[in-house]
Amino acid sequence: MVYLSKSLQQAVEELSKLPGIGRKSAQRIVFYLLKLSTEDVTALADALINVKQKAKYCSICFNITETDPCPICTASHRDRSVICVVEEANDVAALEKSGEYKGLYHVLGGSLSPLDGIGPDDLKIKELLLRLQEDVVTEVILANNPDAEGEATALYLTKLIKPLAIEISRIARGIPVGTDLEYADEITLLKAIEGRTKL
Amino acid sequence: MVYLSKSLQQAVEELSKLPGIGRKSAQRIVFYLLKLSTEDVTALADALINVKQKAKYCSICFNITETDPCPICTASHRDRSVICVVEEANDVAALEKSGEYKGLYHVLGGSLSPLDGIGPDDLKIKELLLRLQEDVVTEVILANNPDAEGEATALYLTKLIKPLAIEISRIARGIPVGTDLEYADEITLLKAIEGRTKL
Repeated sequence: MVYLSKSLQQAVEELSKLPGIGRKSAQRIVFYLLKLSTEDVTALADALINVKQKAKYCSICFNITETDPCPICTASHRDRSVICVVEEANDVAALEKSGEYKGLYHVLGGSLSPLDGIGPDDLKIKELLLRLQEDVVTEVILANNPDAEGEATALYLTKLIKPLAIEISRIARGIPVGTDLEYADEITLLKAIEGRTKL
Repeated sequence: MVYLSKSLQQAVEELSKLPGIGRKSAQRIVFYLLKLSTEDVTALADALINVKQKAKYCSICFNITETDPCPICTASHRDRSVICVVEEANDVAALEKSGEYKGLYHVLGGSLSPLDGIGPDDLKIKELLLRLQEDVVTEVILANNPDAEGEATALYLTKLIKPLAIEISRIARGIPVGTDLEYADEITLLKAIEGRTKL
């Protein structure tokens, strides 16, 4: 890449490491940054360093937070009898956005994936079981992703939680709202029919 | 957005200002950053600040560079008799990537757009004419974008350069290589037929 000066090259390099940003997008972003004021670029850079420095994991639910325990775990108005198990902290953000769920969360930090060498000890499963034993939890909602690893993890958790006599549920898998039935894959359609609700 | 802590919110905010990055991508990037080491995040932030601090405009061709004049303007092996006029510095990067062109460049800094209040004085047109009068230029290639503003700018430049008895050419507009004819719009097809070459 002789056609870009060293500092440009480096910025493109760094940006294209980010998820969803290829070389072309990175280059476009860098040229955009050059048109911004130094203050704006510094604000961006500071925000990135700041989030990395301040954000940590909640010691209860392992969500990302600035205060430990996190605002969700300490909120007095939330239903402490329900725990929703998710894979990643961004899943918490996504569910909170929907605004419907009022219980607590537990972030596993991934899903079981023997091929990638991720076993039960690499996830926050021990910590979940401890919460279920100590707290007054009556229901666990498994919101693992509906892919092979997520389903396997949900199955594994079900086996562990069943003996504790706590209600377990799995989020519904079906046709996404606003899409066309004909574009759904067979497995999603199968799950949609299996999970049909009475009217 | 109660579901994201303040520093996360701010980072998402800053990132979603960038071109091609929406709120969802920004959030995805922030959660990705949190999994990186502090060094990696600092490297990214530093690269962004560094490129902004070091990059400046070449005083001859107005390309973005760390050294003034830029490496292209000072390169001894390049053909100084041809100047390729482009709108933005990233166009130089794109053309250099193709590796075929061996002449010099002139970056206008945009295109004429009366609706946006961009007139001839807002572009580096004066500077281009000065170069054409002083230097030993025999050909000007107009590589302005093939949109309405770019075509208007090319037409405007043609009128200014014609009296100087310098050869003027416009980059070919036609069907992009590797695509299907049926997906091309009518104007592109028209230009492709107009610009046909004898075999």
